[in-house]
Amino acid sequence: MTPGRPVPPPLAKPIPVERTASQGSTLAAAYGATSPESGLLPMTVARRAPKEDDVEIAIEFCGLCHSDVHATRGEWRLPPYPLVPGHEIVGKVTRVGSGVQDFVPGDRVGVGCMVDSCRECASCLEGLEQYCERGNVGTYGATDVRNGGSITQGGYSTSVVVDRRFVLRIPEALDPAAAAPLLCAGITTYSPLRYFDVEEGDSVGVVGLGGLGHMAVKIAKAMGAEVTVFTTSEAKFDAARDLGADHAVLSKDPEAMEEANRSIDVIIDTVAAPHDLNPYFRTLRLDGALFQLGLPAEDMPPVSPGLLIRRRLAYAGSLIGGIEETQEMLDFCAEHGVASDIEIVNAGQLNEAYDRMVAGDVKYRFVLDTSTLQKPSERADA
Amino acid sequence: MTPGRPVPPPLAKPIPVERTASQGSTLAAAYGATSPESGLLPMTVARRAPKEDDVEIAIEFCGLCHSDVHATRGEWRLPPYPLVPGHEIVGKVTRVGSGVQDFVPGDRVGVGCMVDSCRECASCLEGLEQYCERGNVGTYGATDVRNGGSITQGGYSTSVVVDRRFVLRIPEALDPAAAAPLLCAGITTYSPLRYFDVEEGDSVGVVGLGGLGHMAVKIAKAMGAEVTVFTTSEAKFDAARDLGADHAVLSKDPEAMEEANRSIDVIIDTVAAPHDLNPYFRTLRLDGALFQLGLPAEDMPPVSPGLLIRRRLAYAGSLIGGIEETQEMLDFCAEHGVASDIEIVNAGQLNEAYDRMVAGDVKYRFVLDTSTLQKPSERADA
Repeated sequence: MTPGRPVPPPLAKPIPVERTASQGSTLAAAYGATSPESGLLPMTVARRAPKEDDVEIAIEFCGLCHSDVHATRGEWRLPPYPLVPGHEIVGKVTRVGSGVQDFVPGDRVGVGCMVDSCRECASCLEGLEQYCERGNVGTYGATDVRNGGSITQGGYSTSVVVDRRFVLRIPEALDPAAAAPLLCAGITTYSPLRYFDVEEGDSVGVVGLGGLGHMAVKIAKAMGAEVTVFTTSEAKFDAARDLGADHAVLSKDPEAMEEANRSIDVIIDTVAAPHDLNPYFRTLRLDGALFQLGLPAEDMPPVSPGLLIRRRLAYAGSLIGGIEETQEMLDFCAEHGVASDIEIVNAGQLNEAYDRMVAGDVKYRFVLDTSTLQKPSERADA
Repeated sequence: MTPGRPVPPPLAKPIPVERTASQGSTLAAAYGATSPESGLLPMTVARRAPKEDDVEIAIEFCGLCHSDVHATRGEWRLPPYPLVPGHEIVGKVTRVGSGVQDFVPGDRVGVGCMVDSCRECASCLEGLEQYCERGNVGTYGATDVRNGGSITQGGYSTSVVVDRRFVLRIPEALDPAAAAPLLCAGITTYSPLRYFDVEEGDSVGVVGLGGLGHMAVKIAKAMGAEVTVFTTSEAKFDAARDLGADHAVLSKDPEAMEEANRSIDVIIDTVAAPHDLNPYFRTLRLDGALFQLGLPAEDMPPVSPGLLIRRRLAYAGSLIGGIEETQEMLDFCAEHGVASDIEIVNAGQLNEAYDRMVAGDVKYRFVLDTSTLQKPSERADA
């Protein structure tokens, strides 16, 4: 069978799968979707035998990212089904290819949102693989050019095989489950803060207090910034302070927003629904920037260029982070005792967890304990 | 009478003017508007006697900026009438106050969009008076706090009195008439190019080929950049090349825009009407920026955050430039032989020139020869 193609378990819906020879590939237990409406079902996914530069990882934990929900439900575009989501992967190395020097079996490692890129465009050569000009290879649902064009399958699974260049080292000081969300939520907020050169004494605003937002608060605090959380709900003020925020502002209260006028250097906006950015621009100081990280399915309301002009502001975007920067972020988090606030779920709770994520009912990230997935009973090539 | 308050000439509409004592103030001939519909009429404006830090300037030339049209016609907000526009002023020093060391009578000097600021906020202390947190004092239509709260009156006039801190030195190498538009159109495009650190080999895009756009092309070329002009009219291709542009792209041709994909580092967008920015974002490289300089009266179409995110782009604004930077720009233009392409008009042609500006029928800036204004025949305090 094609490596990386998920195979449904015998008792699930039958899904036709092409069988091609792949010496030494293994089967991993997984949960994935077979259609936009299927929800997550148990399935089996083939993992290739480690090639020269590959690292085989026994997955321990995988974070549940809101984009997993969008992807499996086909809300952005129709993905290739069946689809095993998950790109906040932490586990232990089980085997390595002959060309791998940096990792040995037993090492605790992580995999984030990418498993490959072209490795030769200007972005890749700069270590900015996330901006690969040919498009990076996503951890799930992407065409894996260097592996026969198979479709990548993610971390809601017991194992994965990834090129060493896209494997991160998880520092010992980090709890492996709480470290998993750093691979997406952590790096996605760390990267724009670093790009903006946030340092001691800067003022950082965070819009939205979900998986990304709570990491932005913790990381910005660890960088020495004064942090203001903007939230539509006064009920979240305590939560913001518990995370270390210095201020909480009710964003729907015009007076409170006016008080925050010209008080912030950079805003990390994590809200993925359309919302008016102009009130936030007014809270920025000269040369401030607002980084939008969420991708709404509908149009955003218009930005007022006058606000950008009068304070030389930037409305900017940022996409996860490069591999080198992701390692830097993991080491930074270990050094500063930063990790995600998580709730661990088992495989049977995945669909309920998705519904709770959509309802915003999680503080702040679900993490799947992959030991609760069913174990594969056979070799793919058996 | 209040210094700075324009007085209509005897034969124009009678406008009540408060008369207060102002020793040594003089009357200057001027052209200004008395209502949104009045057009420009001859009038007389009082100029204060130079105070300790003041420079009195006999105006030779004043550029006609598109914002003069908006302002006099009340299209942005209703200005205080009567209103003498003009903020691209070049002339010669006639008198200086006792505290002025840098200028002597006979010096050729310029005045741009500001004549004062608070001088003590963070922006002012950084030399970024244009971003004064209390608002800079515009060259016309603004309340001049340090001069009794009088309303400032601009450069369509035979003289002006300005604090030395806001007076620029016009290098001898520059033609005085062609230098006038540098004080607004020049610095407005120079400043974001400098802020973005444009240098030899960078690729600069210019959207719109009017007063600002043509300066952006010349200045970016002088900085060593490769310049692409985006225009909605193929008829402007030759004009773009005449100005020194390396490429011209028909912005309404999707194929041509696709060819320009990922080819530009920074875009200077000078169009003041609502327009879709997303096709321009697609022409930017990783970490590129689009600076919008024009201020449309209506909403801009929505920006696609996905484009900003996937290439870490910035949608930014920029407002004229600080005084120190304006001097730097003038010296840069003198060194590189850069000036505005102008058409000189006399006072009687001002209203026709406004109509032609609105119709886009000017290459690229009208400049008023103030020797054609009527001369004042009396002293204000006579």
